[in-house]
Amino acid sequence: MIVVKIGGGEGIDYDVVCEDVAQLVAEGQRLVLVHGGSHMTNVVAEALGHPPRFVTSPSGYTSRLTDRAALEIFEMVYCGQINKNIVERLQARGVNAVGLSGIDGRLWQGTRKKAIRVVENGRKRIIRDTYTGKVEQVNTTFLNNLLDGGFLPVLTPPAISYAGEAMNVDGDRAAAVTAAALGAAELLILSNVPGVLRHFPDESSLIQQMTRAEIDHARREYAQGRMRIKLLGAAEALDGGVRRVLIGNARGKRPILQALDGKGTVIGD
Amino acid sequence: MIVVKIGGGEGIDYDVVCEDVAQLVAEGQRLVLVHGGSHMTNVVAEALGHPPRFVTSPSGYTSRLTDRAALEIFEMVYCGQINKNIVERLQARGVNAVGLSGIDGRLWQGTRKKAIRVVENGRKRIIRDTYTGKVEQVNTTFLNNLLDGGFLPVLTPPAISYAGEAMNVDGDRAAAVTAAALGAAELLILSNVPGVLRHFPDESSLIQQMTRAEIDHARREYAQGRMRIKLLGAAEALDGGVRRVLIGNARGKRPILQALDGKGTVIGD
Repeated sequence: MIVVKIGGGEGIDYDVVCEDVAQLVAEGQRLVLVHGGSHMTNVVAEALGHPPRFVTSPSGYTSRLTDRAALEIFEMVYCGQINKNIVERLQARGVNAVGLSGIDGRLWQGTRKKAIRVVENGRKRIIRDTYTGKVEQVNTTFLNNLLDGGFLPVLTPPAISYAGEAMNVDGDRAAAVTAAALGAAELLILSNVPGVLRHFPDESSLIQQMTRAEIDHARREYAQGRMRIKLLGAAEALDGGVRRVLIGNARGKRPILQALDGKGTVIGD
Repeated sequence: MIVVKIGGGEGIDYDVVCEDVAQLVAEGQRLVLVHGGSHMTNVVAEALGHPPRFVTSPSGYTSRLTDRAALEIFEMVYCGQINKNIVERLQARGVNAVGLSGIDGRLWQGTRKKAIRVVENGRKRIIRDTYTGKVEQVNTTFLNNLLDGGFLPVLTPPAISYAGEAMNVDGDRAAAVTAAALGAAELLILSNVPGVLRHFPDESSLIQQMTRAEIDHARREYAQGRMRIKLLGAAEALDGGVRRVLIGNARGKRPILQALDGKGTVIGD
């Protein structure tokens, strides 16, 4: 069992991703695909006159500010455009994909943060009525039933709160929780960088191997931006029993097979 | 078993619809919900600078012209915004809803019409590269497995071609095929009119009862616009073994319960 997370940054080629998924599924690989959609969400939000807003937490993480209007645009792009595009591409390659968000069948359930602390111009403040949260429970029964039925689940945020509200969650960490809950051997986190870089954005500084113990150091010392959250997800997956986390490149030919071959950053013992 | 189709015209209140669905599900009713999204698709398409185009067939039916750009906007609204909004509302009311399009798990499969005949300014012409079609097969195994698992399927176009392409299909007729395939006792088609009107738009001319045999006459003589397609769907459902088709109002309080009480047009023997 493997879980593959494909980022939503600019320049992701879903055709080559689906090509690899189709090959692996044809070879009998049990697989769950998770995807993002941040770049296209920004484009559509701009076009609809609701430009995306990003906030920085006191601990230095940047994330999308998801009020109700932003959530609805987010759902249009993630659950509508990108999810169905991936499902269609897989179906055209003979894979019986089923696209689901975390709210469908309460696949990804957790606690909503109705207010978040942010830092703006060096000052802390609280923003209320946000639709964000963290996945705490995965409906593995539903996922395993789909897999046993010959379906390939294609999952995307949002998740759902215990009270039944849609909420934006980090896709990398949702994939990590899913991999741990399903007892996956490997979690692949593919995006538009080749892996963990010691000197971002110098791609020749790619780190090929990393242990679980080295993750905290990397997050503290040199990982930048989104990579810090991917590494947090990697740590959560490994702590949850996943054997290896592969952080690799979603661009270029055969992205999944390349990552499985160890072409990005391999994290584990 | 009942299938409920909720239209996507202006003024549909999804809260009252979901209230009724939640009550019926709590009473043990086996139910599949199908929804549209035409009005919001028009709004979003305008906002994104791809205004919707409509074409008229030689037999006088008006339908959305679905090229690839229109299909992607269609998917954003139907599968993203509206589908997930309905699923969220149902989840908040304790119904374990699962939102799916016809391409997911090949739920709705059929033949794509890559070119359509239209009439423009009195002259016939052919438009190519359209993504439209007709549902011919329903994946009832998948739907019944979901229902048996305690889930409520919330279905929306597009459907999928045998070659694996997404295609726009008429939601009313897709609901009719689904009702027939599932052996449903009743099909409800609710939209922003109170039922079949003899003198559209005079709502006092509501026809309360109609037999299968009277449908063809109604379609030929007095039904207008979208109602002609709803009646075609009604005929297809009845011919497929559905006992009664209820065409009713999606607006106002308790729309599903009102329709089940016979408040709209009841078609059957």
